[in-house]
Amino acid sequence: MPVNYTPPTPEQLLPVAGVTLGTAAAGIKKWTRDDLLLVALSNGSQVAGVFTQNSFCAAPVIVCREHLARGTAMRALVVNAGNANAGNGARGLVDARNTCVAAAGLLGCATQQVLPFSTGVIMEPLPVDKLVEAMPRAHAALATDTWYPAVRSIMTTDTVPKAVSRQIDIGGVAITITGMAKGAGMISPNMATMLGFVATDAPIRGALLDRLARMVADASFNRITIDGDTSTNDSFILIATGRAGISPIEAESDPRLPPVQRALIEVSAYLAQAIVRDGEGATKFIAITVEEGRDVAECDRVARAIANSPLVKTAFFASDPNLGRIVCAIGNAKLDDLAPGGVSLWLDDVLVVESGGRAPSYREEDGQRVMAQPEIAVRVALGRGDASAIVWTCDFSHDYVSINADYRS
Amino acid sequence: MPVNYTPPTPEQLLPVAGVTLGTAAAGIKKWTRDDLLLVALSNGSQVAGVFTQNSFCAAPVIVCREHLARGTAMRALVVNAGNANAGNGARGLVDARNTCVAAAGLLGCATQQVLPFSTGVIMEPLPVDKLVEAMPRAHAALATDTWYPAVRSIMTTDTVPKAVSRQIDIGGVAITITGMAKGAGMISPNMATMLGFVATDAPIRGALLDRLARMVADASFNRITIDGDTSTNDSFILIATGRAGISPIEAESDPRLPPVQRALIEVSAYLAQAIVRDGEGATKFIAITVEEGRDVAECDRVARAIANSPLVKTAFFASDPNLGRIVCAIGNAKLDDLAPGGVSLWLDDVLVVESGGRAPSYREEDGQRVMAQPEIAVRVALGRGDASAIVWTCDFSHDYVSINADYRS
Repeated sequence: MPVNYTPPTPEQLLPVAGVTLGTAAAGIKKWTRDDLLLVALSNGSQVAGVFTQNSFCAAPVIVCREHLARGTAMRALVVNAGNANAGNGARGLVDARNTCVAAAGLLGCATQQVLPFSTGVIMEPLPVDKLVEAMPRAHAALATDTWYPAVRSIMTTDTVPKAVSRQIDIGGVAITITGMAKGAGMISPNMATMLGFVATDAPIRGALLDRLARMVADASFNRITIDGDTSTNDSFILIATGRAGISPIEAESDPRLPPVQRALIEVSAYLAQAIVRDGEGATKFIAITVEEGRDVAECDRVARAIANSPLVKTAFFASDPNLGRIVCAIGNAKLDDLAPGGVSLWLDDVLVVESGGRAPSYREEDGQRVMAQPEIAVRVALGRGDASAIVWTCDFSHDYVSINADYRS
Repeated sequence: MPVNYTPPTPEQLLPVAGVTLGTAAAGIKKWTRDDLLLVALSNGSQVAGVFTQNSFCAAPVIVCREHLARGTAMRALVVNAGNANAGNGARGLVDARNTCVAAAGLLGCATQQVLPFSTGVIMEPLPVDKLVEAMPRAHAALATDTWYPAVRSIMTTDTVPKAVSRQIDIGGVAITITGMAKGAGMISPNMATMLGFVATDAPIRGALLDRLARMVADASFNRITIDGDTSTNDSFILIATGRAGISPIEAESDPRLPPVQRALIEVSAYLAQAIVRDGEGATKFIAITVEEGRDVAECDRVARAIANSPLVKTAFFASDPNLGRIVCAIGNAKLDDLAPGGVSLWLDDVLVVESGGRAPSYREEDGQRVMAQPEIAVRVALGRGDASAIVWTCDFSHDYVSINADYRS
């Protein structure tokens, strides 16, 4: 059960003009459910991508980077669940390209206009024949109102589909943004989550869309961690079909850009948080803010040291205000000459640590009360600057161990 | 139950001339067992220490560093279990000094000749009055043959006492080394484990002993990780009483140094491994060797990325050869321009990954067979240099979560 997250109904996911989606059951694992998704984009769509920094990045990530580097307009995305096509060497690349060939043949575009994505188990050969065989059925199912079956088809250990829509008004024209994401474990994106796709009908040109994608990822998917493991397949894709009836947004200074940017961040942060709320075995959602640092990087380092500490995470699971573990984690971020005497810590509005030690006003029952909540804000002030950073994470429960011990069986 | 580790019998722990140990029950937690240890050292003993790099280092660590920096000969160690006296601000320092005052009064030495150590819960005030009150009873119990009750008194979540003795012959004279350690969680020493004490009657002079302590820690306690959390209290202490009947070892070039050094490493590595074998919830002992790196630091980084990945650790728990997770962890070490195509991976003698992909010869049942063992060797070859590093770790089980969710209750 995700923490404070209600999945969308099919009706809540608004079509984005220029985007059609079709799914099919390729039988990649023992599942009978749909596990293949084909997304077709209308001519002229702009696509920007941000990918994993894992050195062992998956074959589809390599192919995506190649295709995007050519600057050709993209016409389709192909996504499969159940197999990550990672760690498969040269064969993995051939398989990823062959899924593009199959989609391109059906859509009448070039292979280089298709972006492939895979999610699932690592280092098992992709059963590409099954994908190719199922592709025509996904193609036949293409429609604009199929975001809901689409997001369901890309789930792996996710317990709920993660998708959301927003509409904003730009000079009297409705601009639609719909996004979907998947992921519940191996989540510590350093670029983007496992898979996140956000589409808008706003017309945003290439170079600007690239910068926007990076900025949006940094404010959303790059803020989350479940287990500190950056996946081989992380991909975040931002699509602008340009089909809304407004003139192209081309300059950073365009006054229409800020509201679009805000809405894109809102959708992406919602999806990123949904991944944490549905984190493997998660029972709590924790927002960790680190303030008063010398720069954003050191705030981020402290926030991640707390967020990824198994001891802190198990204490959250137990609703135990074992604050020493948070303090220990701050110390483990190993900032240059951090003076513990300048550090303060709050759980929600309860001051816990002051001047590096237990706050005189702190009472165990206040900490206990906050820790028992399903949603907890941890705030650290480093007392040595003006920078800040936030990271969203979840706790570490018995179910995390169970889910990951049984994953392949 | 620790993995392939049999605790010593009291008789197996050999006295070290010049070292006496006494324990008492101070009632720091609800325990009735002894939780206070006083170690007295004969005049002329040399002591060297290596401590945690956590920025929030505990009060006793600060006091140890101060006292050792004075260069005075040490006469005693005081250790308590049940409370780490960490994150307690100025009061923590006063409390740590007061335990030294109490021991010094009984032994007739200066306060600065006593080293304090604490292990247990972080950020709760040390009940120093209880320690001071119990100190005379520990003093009255001082004896040479009490290493066994001594190591039992410093346990926290340890399920077994960790101690070992070795004797070597130097020119016809028997040199004794006895060491003890404690620790089972919050273990990723970056200096030394929670607490490790190794004593020898070999006469080794100050500056040389300091270098030896660092070198021995690097080859033993700094090679282990249970959960990636470096404790606030990590301390490794090397004691040389000089009471064995040989002339002092003062120079690096002394031919008697290598055998002593080897025996010290042997004892310390045995204790370090014992901590991992008794890691919280551990069911498997895993040795991770990374070879063919450009330097030791990058090999160490890859080994720790594997050892600390919750996904890798849960796969070991499940005996699941989910090799993709190991590959993903290698990629997460984020080495500069690591070429996946050059990477190989073995589980024991089974070649799993070759040229960055699944080895053609690899059969799932071979991986399965190795993963089912209680003791597993993981070997990674990076294919880009001659350096290597080893890290010892354990798996991540349901019991890790249980132990850490219930720790304070």
